[in-house]
Amino acid sequence: MKQLVHRTIEQYAMIPDGARVLCGLSGGADSVSLLLCLHELGYDVCACHLNHGLRGAQADADEAFCRALCERLAIPFYAEVCDAGAAAAQQKQSVETAARALRYAFFDRCAQKCGAARIATAHTADDNLETMLFHLIRGTGSAGLAGIPPVRGTIIRPLIAVERRQVEEYLVQRGQDWRTDATNLDNSCTRNRIRHTVIPALRDIEPAAARHAAQAAALLRQDNDCLDALVQVGGTSVSAARLRDMPEALASRAVRDMLVHAGTPMGEVGQRQIAAVLALARKKSGTASLPGRRRALRRGNEIRIEPMPPETGQVELVPEKPVRFGAYLVCITRKIQDIHSSFKFYPIAYDTINTVCLSVRRWRPDDRMTLPGARGARSLKRLYAERGIAPEQRDALPVLCCGGEIVAAAGIGVDSRYCGTTGAFAVAHDADGRKKRGAKV
Amino acid sequence: MKQLVHRTIEQYAMIPDGARVLCGLSGGADSVSLLLCLHELGYDVCACHLNHGLRGAQADADEAFCRALCERLAIPFYAEVCDAGAAAAQQKQSVETAARALRYAFFDRCAQKCGAARIATAHTADDNLETMLFHLIRGTGSAGLAGIPPVRGTIIRPLIAVERRQVEEYLVQRGQDWRTDATNLDNSCTRNRIRHTVIPALRDIEPAAARHAAQAAALLRQDNDCLDALVQVGGTSVSAARLRDMPEALASRAVRDMLVHAGTPMGEVGQRQIAAVLALARKKSGTASLPGRRRALRRGNEIRIEPMPPETGQVELVPEKPVRFGAYLVCITRKIQDIHSSFKFYPIAYDTINTVCLSVRRWRPDDRMTLPGARGARSLKRLYAERGIAPEQRDALPVLCCGGEIVAAAGIGVDSRYCGTTGAFAVAHDADGRKKRGAKV
Repeated sequence: MKQLVHRTIEQYAMIPDGARVLCGLSGGADSVSLLLCLHELGYDVCACHLNHGLRGAQADADEAFCRALCERLAIPFYAEVCDAGAAAAQQKQSVETAARALRYAFFDRCAQKCGAARIATAHTADDNLETMLFHLIRGTGSAGLAGIPPVRGTIIRPLIAVERRQVEEYLVQRGQDWRTDATNLDNSCTRNRIRHTVIPALRDIEPAAARHAAQAAALLRQDNDCLDALVQVGGTSVSAARLRDMPEALASRAVRDMLVHAGTPMGEVGQRQIAAVLALARKKSGTASLPGRRRALRRGNEIRIEPMPPETGQVELVPEKPVRFGAYLVCITRKIQDIHSSFKFYPIAYDTINTVCLSVRRWRPDDRMTLPGARGARSLKRLYAERGIAPEQRDALPVLCCGGEIVAAAGIGVDSRYCGTTGAFAVAHDADGRKKRGAKV
Repeated sequence: MKQLVHRTIEQYAMIPDGARVLCGLSGGADSVSLLLCLHELGYDVCACHLNHGLRGAQADADEAFCRALCERLAIPFYAEVCDAGAAAAQQKQSVETAARALRYAFFDRCAQKCGAARIATAHTADDNLETMLFHLIRGTGSAGLAGIPPVRGTIIRPLIAVERRQVEEYLVQRGQDWRTDATNLDNSCTRNRIRHTVIPALRDIEPAAARHAAQAAALLRQDNDCLDALVQVGGTSVSAARLRDMPEALASRAVRDMLVHAGTPMGEVGQRQIAAVLALARKKSGTASLPGRRRALRRGNEIRIEPMPPETGQVELVPEKPVRFGAYLVCITRKIQDIHSSFKFYPIAYDTINTVCLSVRRWRPDDRMTLPGARGARSLKRLYAERGIAPEQRDALPVLCCGGEIVAAAGIGVDSRYCGTTGAFAVAHDADGRKKRGAKV
């Protein structure tokens, strides 16, 4: 095992010459053998242990075990206690996710404190195979199928090619014991089922399954890294033609790159979202909603990722009182002659509307209205399109409703049932909101 | 299922407009539903069935079932009987491999006969997941992990996104029965174990495992196709610098491309062979053995794949009789004055050699000899290198042995124990073998 770890460290240039390495030490077989092995190989190691505050006396015994091990080996040791349960409740995460975030933050703090340039975690080839299977049955792409990265920033995984079996052999040979964690914090229920049912079945068929899967992961990682390096959009927009002409493998990565630049939470981005953005490259216009209140927008020959315009809710309307609707000021009035020239107004038959249930809101996909002279109702979507109002502008425009009915839509006009000249629906773009708000309509 | 099959056919442009499709029909649920579904979707289908000659009466019943089904649907039907067992024995293959080769050859013949532009096989998402797992635990790269290709040449797999569960539902809904093959010709023992133990465990964890794995396979295939398209060496040689400067994902594909061009049997090429060729890019010279009697050769700044030079066995030698050794003529003679000027000769002490056990052979890695004046024995490898004889030339040069001892080596000289001037070891490059053979030395 020692040779294999040494080869892995060399292969991925994990540890710069003379650099100090911080080992995350839980007390389990994997992390104990990692610490021991790096120590035996002559690296300058220190260790840290986080008590997640979840398992009471057992956790205290784990910490004592780790402390004693490091004392015996004269390895600097840091320990801390946190409350993963409380963090999970507060951030509405699973305990596993919260514990993981606390742990990596703790690793970073400790590395700073002891001047470690690298943080070693004890993930093995078995963990890697679990991760690959986990992603395989979830349908994630090559990045997920490539398993656990041997190196990610300052995090290194020197045991990534070592099987769990080898880890235990290594410790038994040295008469070194370890602690067994009954809860296995790092593993969700699904992962535990993969570990306890699927992996033994695969190992039964092919004893070297985990080692072979590690080789496969390394090849997939090479592929993925190579493709990632080939597409660096480097911004939040790209020409639709460029996206359309790329091989699909590159186009989907180009979209991911734009999403990252636009600050989209990538954990929530799946194939469906990527496909929706790619579909824009084959359309004339359109938008696609994205996680984190982002959207993709096709405008002319460009596809751009941008924050969603602020959602404008429904706003109640009282006649003669201008109210703000997103970037607009709107008002219902009988005094057409008093309307300020900066307002666009749509004349209505004031007496046909029920003034106690007036509101403005943004358009909805099933909205329809009948214009004067038209033969029937048509969708707002189509009416906007005919007037050349781009999809991204439509969401901001106010639609005047009376009860559930559409009276008028800014940019389009007034429904035939409400046409007249005894009042008006007045709309102004709120270029200077504060000044206008006090002004007369 | 019908919609899913239709979408798959569209997505991969599987069937050109109006083209006829030949279905491989075993009588099992997968192929029966494939035929039925293509028929219902309105494609012009025909079907063929190969009786592998392995299961007697049961196989005859399968054929009768397929024939009846096609008659009822008025679909042209072709059947043939072969002897897969005999073919396997003759070609020293497993019965599965032999049956597969016979089947695909039969498909090609039938497609020709009935004018089908495409051959549809009934591989499902479950087959694909099995293939992916099979390759995962064997450590193959992205091409293998990408599973079963939806399209390969004229072979198409319209059911590749369909789960086996859906196939059976589809047939049950239609009241269509199918045959159950007890031996499952297409599956090796390993594959059957994956099918019967691992897949059910995965489906237990994630019911949509096969469907998700099909998505993952499609993404990996995009990646792999994109990378393959990026590196087309297009020949059997490449500059070492170019290979060294490529990302590893491309370099390994460049090597594969060269191996294909050199006619190497790719089924026998693994990561180890690829790595050996890549290693040549970081050396000054060297060779690497490859399957199919091919080798990779570093010469100057070039890496080339070429056929291994013909192996020259050991050739017995009788004094005064010139014999052929590969591209050389060699002879042991007492008559130094008679040696033709086209021969290079190495003077020896004739009486020190036992003339009844003389032979010439090519050098071996553990060969050593002591030259006159030298302090001790040195390896032939080193002596060749000192004389500037390139590695690829060494294999052709004759080494003269007496019993187990080396007397002399062409290109180097005579061992100190056999030095003298009462005879000679004469060697000529056989530029015109036939003329020289009759000639005097």
